[in-house]
Amino acid sequence: MKEGRTGERMTAEINEQPEVLAALVETRAEIATVARSIAERSPRFALLVARGSSDHAALYAKYLIEILLGLPAGLASPSTTTLYDAHPDLRDVLVVTVSQSGSSPDLLEATVSAKAGGALTLAVTNTPSSPLHDVAEFSVQIRAGQELAVAATKTYSATLLALYLLVDAARGGSGEHVRDIGELARQALVESSEGVERAVERYRFADRLITTARGYSFATALEAALKLTETSYLTTRAYSGADLLHGPVAAVDTDTAVLAVTSEGRGGGAMWDVLDAVSGRGADVLTVGSAAASMPASLCIPLPETTEEIAPILEVLPVQRLALGLALARGFDPDRPRGLHKVTRTR
Amino acid sequence: MKEGRTGERMTAEINEQPEVLAALVETRAEIATVARSIAERSPRFALLVARGSSDHAALYAKYLIEILLGLPAGLASPSTTTLYDAHPDLRDVLVVTVSQSGSSPDLLEATVSAKAGGALTLAVTNTPSSPLHDVAEFSVQIRAGQELAVAATKTYSATLLALYLLVDAARGGSGEHVRDIGELARQALVESSEGVERAVERYRFADRLITTARGYSFATALEAALKLTETSYLTTRAYSGADLLHGPVAAVDTDTAVLAVTSEGRGGGAMWDVLDAVSGRGADVLTVGSAAASMPASLCIPLPETTEEIAPILEVLPVQRLALGLALARGFDPDRPRGLHKVTRTR
Repeated sequence: MKEGRTGERMTAEINEQPEVLAALVETRAEIATVARSIAERSPRFALLVARGSSDHAALYAKYLIEILLGLPAGLASPSTTTLYDAHPDLRDVLVVTVSQSGSSPDLLEATVSAKAGGALTLAVTNTPSSPLHDVAEFSVQIRAGQELAVAATKTYSATLLALYLLVDAARGGSGEHVRDIGELARQALVESSEGVERAVERYRFADRLITTARGYSFATALEAALKLTETSYLTTRAYSGADLLHGPVAAVDTDTAVLAVTSEGRGGGAMWDVLDAVSGRGADVLTVGSAAASMPASLCIPLPETTEEIAPILEVLPVQRLALGLALARGFDPDRPRGLHKVTRTR
Repeated sequence: MKEGRTGERMTAEINEQPEVLAALVETRAEIATVARSIAERSPRFALLVARGSSDHAALYAKYLIEILLGLPAGLASPSTTTLYDAHPDLRDVLVVTVSQSGSSPDLLEATVSAKAGGALTLAVTNTPSSPLHDVAEFSVQIRAGQELAVAATKTYSATLLALYLLVDAARGGSGEHVRDIGELARQALVESSEGVERAVERYRFADRLITTARGYSFATALEAALKLTETSYLTTRAYSGADLLHGPVAAVDTDTAVLAVTSEGRGGGAMWDVLDAVSGRGADVLTVGSAAASMPASLCIPLPETTEEIAPILEVLPVQRLALGLALARGFDPDRPRGLHKVTRTR
């Protein structure tokens, strides 16, 4: 493929998301079949295996599984298998491997080893013919189409939606709350665009950014920190609102920009204390989410209201545009980040 | 208590660690009794509940449990209980709550709720008379004595040792590898002191620091990032070596200092690729650990060699001194960090 204009790929893929999500939700019957087959085997516990952006999607799934299914869940550390050759007893355990490419060697190895340890294995990937698809007992396709930009955008939101559809079907749902997710995503891109533009101007020269959220939206805070780091080279780190208050708030000062994800619901509601604390220390606060406009901030990026569980699917859209916009404003090409590869080859 | 010299409390508590660890290891028979009672109930899965530094100790325990006991383990998100009122089925699950004070309301609530959900509950605390001690079915004391500095130091290393002794006893061990941990800690403080002093000088004006490690030592990288952030207000974040290569390495440049924890063993061995990548991008590399001197770096802080599982207990000692030294060099009082409290009151 020809090299295009700066940021062209990432821009195009961000804008494809309403269509990608709308198309994926149409395959919900297929995903529900997989969910029912797994539910019939009554796993006692879920372990999620992923790296990078997919790890944030996995955290979102952990919340869904614990809250909506009442099943304890944890994020796996692939290195216990790949470095230390651990062989935990995984009977009655569902191991979900989330990987856009479906071909990272360490995730493959962890999945093969989980199957050998007795686990039920499920792959969530964007690549139907991938090795991961072949190795796992069950598999769900996120159908986001080829992703050309190095920074994951549409594969991230589609992964969230696929995981939501799986969990919703496992509890007997019919995908009611996400039926119009394509339209909601389109609205989200429109409603948030002015706020994103202003945020790009405001943080053009920012040095230090912290992202924070609680509950489901913590996945968005983590994804925002990663996206900003890998495209704009901005030193960014994410904290759960609770952990931020525990210690790192000491480092927040008037030179700190704080991106707080605040959607309607319990997670967003628990952010009042956090916003008080960081504002009290003089930080510049940007709120993003359906409750953004009702909370104290220097700037807000509003989003359409949804049930809390699906808010992360929309929250990430303006975050991706902010990362893209800041990268361009700072003179970087987000389509060609320094030193990044699409498939991780770590073991 | 009278206000002392700047950093006096943190200094004293760092230096107490050889004694604290030596005393704790003498109580290993008591800890082994708890470990055996839990092992008799044959838990199928372990969940760890913690926040802040204790969360890093919990991650260390997760590796120990998966690798040495072959039991799948995960870190819990207290907010699924405290915000979303989730009630997962926790029969056959061991829930370990790690809390220095034993009185954080969210950890207490998560523990009470886990017990109600059928879990075996174990508290690891520094406060024998704490509410957490009363609530949990089993309990282990880390016996670090009162910690006056706001930044956790001796309670962190003692928590690691207590968790190691628990897991080692559960696999039938007798604490062989940590018998001399007090003496090893004393040696570690001596051997590392020159390197720490040089690192304080070198990073006095650093703006951006990344910490990284793989395997057991990843807990040290996380703890280093937290300690540096909350005492020196240095923008620091931790990456697993594998995740760093996946994306954030793009943000590493000649203005980045990288603290890499590299001890003898598989985790340290897997850091060669990571050091190559960050050095190739011009970063300034500081290695800390028993393999530090044998790896390419601008500066190294050596430590005594131990079996890999217990290396994190020693690795954190020079890290604490580095945080203390940088705080003092930058004109801050680590005993009175801005906006920090000893017990988190989040829910």
